[in-house]
Order: sequence, then C-alpha cells, then structure tokens
Amino acid sequence: MRVAVLGLGLVGGSITRRLHPDHDVAGWDADPETRELAAAAGIRVEEAPDADVTIVATPLAASGDVLARLSTADCPIVTDVGSVKVPVLAAARAAGLAGRYVGGHPMAGTEHAGFAASDPAMLAGAAWVLCVEQDTDLTAWTTVAALVTGMGCRVVPTDARTHDDAQARISGLPHLLATALAVAGGGGGPLARTLAAGSFRDGTRVAGSRPELITGLCDGNRDALDAVLTDTLSRLTDARDALRAGGTVRPLAEAGHRARLALTVPAATVAVRLDATAGTFRADLADLGAAGGTVDAVRPGGELLCRRPG
Amino acid sequence: MRVAVLGLGLVGGSITRRLHPDHDVAGWDADPETRELAAAAGIRVEEAPDADVTIVATPLAASGDVLARLSTADCPIVTDVGSVKVPVLAAARAAGLAGRYVGGHPMAGTEHAGFAASDPAMLAGAAWVLCVEQDTDLTAWTTVAALVTGMGCRVVPTDARTHDDAQARISGLPHLLATALAVAGGGGGPLARTLAAGSFRDGTRVAGSRPELITGLCDGNRDALDAVLTDTLSRLTDARDALRAGGTVRPLAEAGHRARLALTVPAATVAVRLDATAGTFRADLADLGAAGGTVDAVRPGGELLCRRPG
Repeated sequence: MRVAVLGLGLVGGSITRRLHPDHDVAGWDADPETRELAAAAGIRVEEAPDADVTIVATPLAASGDVLARLSTADCPIVTDVGSVKVPVLAAARAAGLAGRYVGGHPMAGTEHAGFAASDPAMLAGAAWVLCVEQDTDLTAWTTVAALVTGMGCRVVPTDARTHDDAQARISGLPHLLATALAVAGGGGGPLARTLAAGSFRDGTRVAGSRPELITGLCDGNRDALDAVLTDTLSRLTDARDALRAGGTVRPLAEAGHRARLALTVPAATVAVRLDATAGTFRADLADLGAAGGTVDAVRPGGELLCRRPG
Repeated sequence: MRVAVLGLGLVGGSITRRLHPDHDVAGWDADPETRELAAAAGIRVEEAPDADVTIVATPLAASGDVLARLSTADCPIVTDVGSVKVPVLAAARAAGLAGRYVGGHPMAGTEHAGFAASDPAMLAGAAWVLCVEQDTDLTAWTTVAALVTGMGCRVVPTDARTHDDAQARISGLPHLLATALAVAGGGGGPLARTLAAGSFRDGTRVAGSRPELITGLCDGNRDALDAVLTDTLSRLTDARDALRAGGTVRPLAEAGHRARLALTVPAATVAVRLDATAGTFRADLADLGAAGGTVDAVRPGGELLCRRPG
C-alpha cells in the first residue's frame, strides 16, 4: 500500500517507522530538523506524496488546515490520529472530505514528544479507534482497518461523538481530578506530604504530566468533558451534602466499588467474524464497538476477525 | 514496659505481635475466636490488665465506650490508633482522661481485617501520628513516642484537628474522587472499558477497597472532609465553567503539576535533636510536625532524635 504520513512527531514517527519498509511510505513534517531525522532513519521525505492512504498526524490545532489542503490533492482515503474526533470530523466535512475521511485515534503514547522519541514498539497491541459515521465510506474504513490491524493493533469501531464521550470519561476526567487532588493535598502542607500514602500517590500520578498535555486533552474535548464533569460534580456534591447533614457517603462508595470491579475483572471474549460485504456491516461495526469488541484482522475478500466480551 | 492492647484486629494484632516479647504485653478482644487466635500466638489474654501504656485498638465506633471504662481503671497513659482524631479526643476529655490520653494513628494497613491478617512487618518504618494538644501531658507523650519509635516507626507530632484535615486531604478525598471517577467511567459502558488505560486505572484503584472501609474513612471525618471537598468542588466547578465559556483548564493543570512535583521530589532531610525537658518542648514538637518532620528515636533522659525536610 502507498501510505503518506503528514506530521512526524511521537505518534506519526512511530507509525511511519512501523509501516516502513512493509509498505511504500512517505512522510513530511513542517519542521526541517524533524525531516532530517526521518530521512536519516531511512524514511522517504516528500511534501505532497500520492498515496492510497494519507494519515494526518500533525498537532490537533493544525489538522483543519491540513485537511483543507488535502481536499484538492490526489488522496482517496484520509485518516488521522487526533485524541478528539468531533472537531476533526467537522473539519473534514467542511473540507468536502466526508466520504474519504476515517477518524482515527491510537490509544498509545508516552510522556515524551517528537520523532526522536518515536518507537514502533509503542503501538504493539494498542487499541486504535476508527470511526464509522453515517457518511463514512465502508470500503475506505475497511482499507484503513486492514492497515491498522496489519501493525498488530486492535481496531475499536465507534463514532466520533461516542469516542469523545468515552475519552472524556477515561482520560480528560481522570487528569482533571488528579490535578484537583494534588492541589488539595498541597494545601495540607509538609505534614500532609509526610502522611501521604498509596491512595494519594496513585490518585495524583497523572497530575505530573506536562500541563500543556492535560490542557490539550481537556480543552480539546470541552463539550463531552463539560457533560461528564457536570455529572461528577453533582454526584460529589450529593456526597458532600450527605456528610454535612450527618448522613453517609456509602451509596457512592458502593457504586464506585461495583464500577471498579467491572473494570478489573477481565471479561471472557468470544471470537466473531464480520462480513464487510454484508448490508448490515455498518450496524455490525457499531454493535461490536458498543459491546467493547475489537477487529483484530482483515482478510482479503472482506472477512473481519473480531473478538467481543461475552 | 507493661502494655495492654484492647482490640486485636489487623492493627491491634500487628502491634501486639510486634511488642511481644520485648515488652510485657497483654491483649483483649470482644470476640472469643480472636482471643483464642491471640492466645495460640503466645499473647497473654486478659480483660483489664494493669499497664503502663494502654493502647485502644477497637473499631472507632467502640472507642468512646472503652475510654469511659478506662477512666476508672489503673492506666496512667492511654493512646489509640483510630484513623480520625477529633472525635476520640472529645471522648477522652468527656471521660476525664485528657491529661492521660495521647491520640495516635499509625499510617499502616492492608485491605484485609482481623487478627488472622495481622503482621508485625506491616508497621515497619511507618509514619505514626501522635497528637500533642494543649492539655496533653508531655511525659505521657514522650513515653508513647518511645514505645512507637521502639517498634521502628517514625512519630509525626501534630494535633487532632490538623491530623483530621490532612487525613481528609490525603485519604478521604482520594477515595471519594476514585469512586466518583469509577462511576463516571462505568457510565461509558463496555466501549469506555476497552479504551481505558493508565490514567483511569490509577485514578480508580482505591475505589476497589471495601465500601465499608471507604465509608468509615469519610463518614468518620465528616467535618474536615466537608471543608476540603467543598474547596475541591469549587476548583473543579471553575474548570467546568471555563470549559463551557470557551476558556481553558490550564490554571488548574499548572497548579496540580506544581503540587504533584512537590510531593514526588523527595525533600532532603536534616537531623535535629529535641530536648523533652525544655520549656519550649510543646512548641518544638508542633513546629517539627508542621514542617513535615518526624521523631525517629527517644533516648533515656529525654533526648529526641528527629529528621525534618530542609
């Protein structure tokens, strides 16, 4: 497959190095030093390569401009790796790319940045969201899924809005709560630091991430995060009001305990096969993703090997 | 030293086994099976032993009754191990034990309960709060500190109200935020579980604790937790309002990052000595605890070997 990767930072660089030389890969980055590093690693560096699949891996803020430029280029399929999907989908539609665009998000990263930190091993076994919208071309989707599963990743089919809601719950919110907890602990001064043990250390770990990373995760997904944060504030306010009235936090403790157990007790999975040529394929993918399932391989002819909890 | 331990669960059992046979230890528990287990482990079991130091290690709910009974017994020094200190101090004062009572809290535990789970090694190197109030007898305090440092623990001097505030910040609040986060993640269904990675797993770990443990930590410290939770709700509400208005969570991300760094960058410590016979001893202890310092050994004659960040 001819693949173009636009943006050669941590994620774009890792993807490029994972795909080269199995595929005919060309990469580009706005930064001349990054281009030099990539060329030194054996990557073909080219500004506007023709490709079967074009992967936009620039920072989120730049993806709108890149998509607008791609709308007039020869690129039949466009995907991206942004950590928020609703705004990028809107930009793709605005650029007239709706049918050709497949929103993507590999759930892999480190606290480092740049091509120098890129590592093909970072992607091994990662969950990789690929969005199926009402206007997504299913042949384009299956082509990107074949490329992604070929890298050893598990494709999670969903849609942009559902992705952003889940992302707010499992990434934006934990980062925000960790920062608020760190500030509250800091308010207890050196004594509180001397007494702090496991629950405080675990709960604040990700507050150590770079502030710009946390800001990007949260500001970039403001609508979904607003909704889940508002729910959470309401639940915590109820607990505070119960404490104040001489009541108990027990209902929240029990609900949290049940939810945590559901997360950690690994679900048994069953293998399922989907047929990309079936008339139900769009609905089949939506069901698979909603059930927590993944596409693990795409066979020639359109058979998808999948797993789902069950 | 003659020591009595009343309540032989996880903490009381661990203390008893750590002190025996270095000291003349007797223990008691309301539960006959627990008494049998303790006797089988070589502990002298006796209901109301005469002792130089009596350690109340019953569940918090029972400590008021036990303290009331001790007020008429021959026990010159009484301490306890409860995870909240203001209510126990009030009960000790109500029982007329003010001068003889030293509030204590060893920062050690596991998710298990009962004498069968007790383990002297659980206490190794633990921070152990001993409260100094205006009416605390300093000879009683130093006697308990000698017993505790003799077990290899580091004594943190503070007062009941400051302890409970710190405890709300570094234990009650992280447990409550973890349960709220687990519930929010659970609301994203199986898809969110498939996508959940490190930040969500770390942030929800302690939500897996027994609900009665979390409830006890929070309900037992309701005033202090109300205050710090109210502050935290206000900070998170500001972040939500900023998101909603098209602004940024950056100020919170930066404050949280600074607070977390202060926690994890280990402070260099300096050795200091305190003199238990000095007129400034009460203030010296308060300063040491507020600075995040600990008493590591008590020498005959009243010299205390301490460490503090600096």
